[in-house]
Amino acid sequence: MKRDRVLLAHGGGGSLTRELIETMLLPRLENPLLKPLDDSAVLVMGNSGYAFTSDSYVVTPYLFPGGDIGRLAVCGTVNDLAVMGAQPFWLSLSLILEEGLPLTDLSTIVDSIHAAAAEVGAQVVTGDTKVVERGKCEGLYINTAGLGKISVPYWLGSANVKPGDAVIINGPIGEHGVAVMSRREGVAFQTSVTSDCAPLWPLVKAILDTGARIRAMRDPTRGGVAGAVCDIARASNVGIRLFEDAIPISGEVRGACDLLGLDPLTIANEGKVLVFCGAKDAEPVLAAMKNHPLGRQARVIGEVSTKPEGMALLRTTIGGERIIDMPTGEDLPRIC
Amino acid sequence: MKRDRVLLAHGGGGSLTRELIETMLLPRLENPLLKPLDDSAVLVMGNSGYAFTSDSYVVTPYLFPGGDIGRLAVCGTVNDLAVMGAQPFWLSLSLILEEGLPLTDLSTIVDSIHAAAAEVGAQVVTGDTKVVERGKCEGLYINTAGLGKISVPYWLGSANVKPGDAVIINGPIGEHGVAVMSRREGVAFQTSVTSDCAPLWPLVKAILDTGARIRAMRDPTRGGVAGAVCDIARASNVGIRLFEDAIPISGEVRGACDLLGLDPLTIANEGKVLVFCGAKDAEPVLAAMKNHPLGRQARVIGEVSTKPEGMALLRTTIGGERIIDMPTGEDLPRIC
Repeated sequence: MKRDRVLLAHGGGGSLTRELIETMLLPRLENPLLKPLDDSAVLVMGNSGYAFTSDSYVVTPYLFPGGDIGRLAVCGTVNDLAVMGAQPFWLSLSLILEEGLPLTDLSTIVDSIHAAAAEVGAQVVTGDTKVVERGKCEGLYINTAGLGKISVPYWLGSANVKPGDAVIINGPIGEHGVAVMSRREGVAFQTSVTSDCAPLWPLVKAILDTGARIRAMRDPTRGGVAGAVCDIARASNVGIRLFEDAIPISGEVRGACDLLGLDPLTIANEGKVLVFCGAKDAEPVLAAMKNHPLGRQARVIGEVSTKPEGMALLRTTIGGERIIDMPTGEDLPRIC
Repeated sequence: MKRDRVLLAHGGGGSLTRELIETMLLPRLENPLLKPLDDSAVLVMGNSGYAFTSDSYVVTPYLFPGGDIGRLAVCGTVNDLAVMGAQPFWLSLSLILEEGLPLTDLSTIVDSIHAAAAEVGAQVVTGDTKVVERGKCEGLYINTAGLGKISVPYWLGSANVKPGDAVIINGPIGEHGVAVMSRREGVAFQTSVTSDCAPLWPLVKAILDTGARIRAMRDPTRGGVAGAVCDIARASNVGIRLFEDAIPISGEVRGACDLLGLDPLTIANEGKVLVFCGAKDAEPVLAAMKNHPLGRQARVIGEVSTKPEGMALLRTTIGGERIIDMPTGEDLPRIC
């Protein structure tokens, strides 16, 4: 289908987002630093590697169970640095505010920003404030860019995964997406699920401190675990197999997904990290993760092989195998 | 007046923006790197100083005479780096797109982004794309963060200006604001004024290459020249006197301001720089500026004295003096 206008799904983090990036942005902006399309760009300054990333946040509602757009913005940006092995140091904060936004809500959100940044020792060092007329945004949109120093003597990246690697996750999936959806107007379900929104650098540091050689990490946000493993399988040209019965998921999240007709693998997480490492490194990495509050429920959930090249598969509970498709991105707009 | 909601003027770059920053943001986020509130934060990485900045752009309309929101976003961010003496190297690009935005407009804007970045040898190295429902933004909002390497062995900043310094500008004021306003719905005036939107690093480099000791530079965007000199007078605790008859301004811009009832000193510029340097350095700096295409009409437009502390004054054409007030920010919403 030839498209001539932006669709909501272009922002969903799935195949349409990728299409927009690959047909519209990359051909016009292409350069070697942008091309890897990892969570952060890797820059060399002095003799050190630094990670640089930026994300805008448009989540609705802007206050949700377990967090708010401010905490989300810091966590999302910190986590994009952390998965590149970078300790987050400096953040920018750019606000687009809707005329009429209650200042009490703004103060709650700015407090969340400060608290989340303080959890990892990062600071907001620069910023900007714009205001648009009533109705021209929804409460507020936030952009946070981040800079961190890479703390390992090698670079992580989604193209580095190798056959034989283990796939580890730090805990149950789908909580952020379900928590946000539960507060949407017109969505009729009750749940006690709260967003998993958390800055992952302390957990990532514990992983890196094992000395294990990590190939790649990815925080499975928009597009969920499905989007992340599809991306990495393609970038590394490997086959990734996940084991359905190993993937941690709560009964409540599973129930909400059944109700909404959604695959939990496609639901956004904001405090989860997928870790790819050699099979022999899996044990110490898993032990380090379980020893950290953000990794108590860590599990090996999959393995990497040579085939099928560039594809991700799910070995189901009943023993079959299905292809994990890159989500299109249309199911869950404005989730982050 | 006790305010409990965000007003449009909170985004105007004037006294209400300052109030929001000083009462809402600084007390919650305060740290030594944020506190100077300069156009960029100055970070030390390795043995070098780097400038880091971020701005969101919400200009309406997003295509305007002399540019578009893409060119504006790159210029605004590059110029915030340049005025700190930093050569812009790396940019992030985060898009918030409105469902239904024509992809042809998006491609025009991405082309502008690439072209403007290329003018100064900068690259877009990371980014993000979000989409919101029809009506939840206006076409698109853009955030660009930027990183540049400081190219002088000292730091510039708005607190460094000294009595005796000269105030220089590189050309006529008010063009960006007037060009954008002329395309607003409901604004009934015709003009051939185009935005001055330009990345100033090449001009700034020519200034720094003179070896003159520059105290501070500022790109007078939102709030215009008035906002910039009020800010600097306060930060450096000096008196700044501008000479009305020395300030370059075109007849068309003056006419448009008369028609709209606006003070040209408060109108946004996107390709202008105010340079503060010692009086003896003014001549070589002015010569270097006039020798550059972006500085042909450079002029000394004012001087700095000890009194009145923290205030800016205008010596009018007829010989009187008036206080230059910090604009409130309510006159020109969504200008950048």
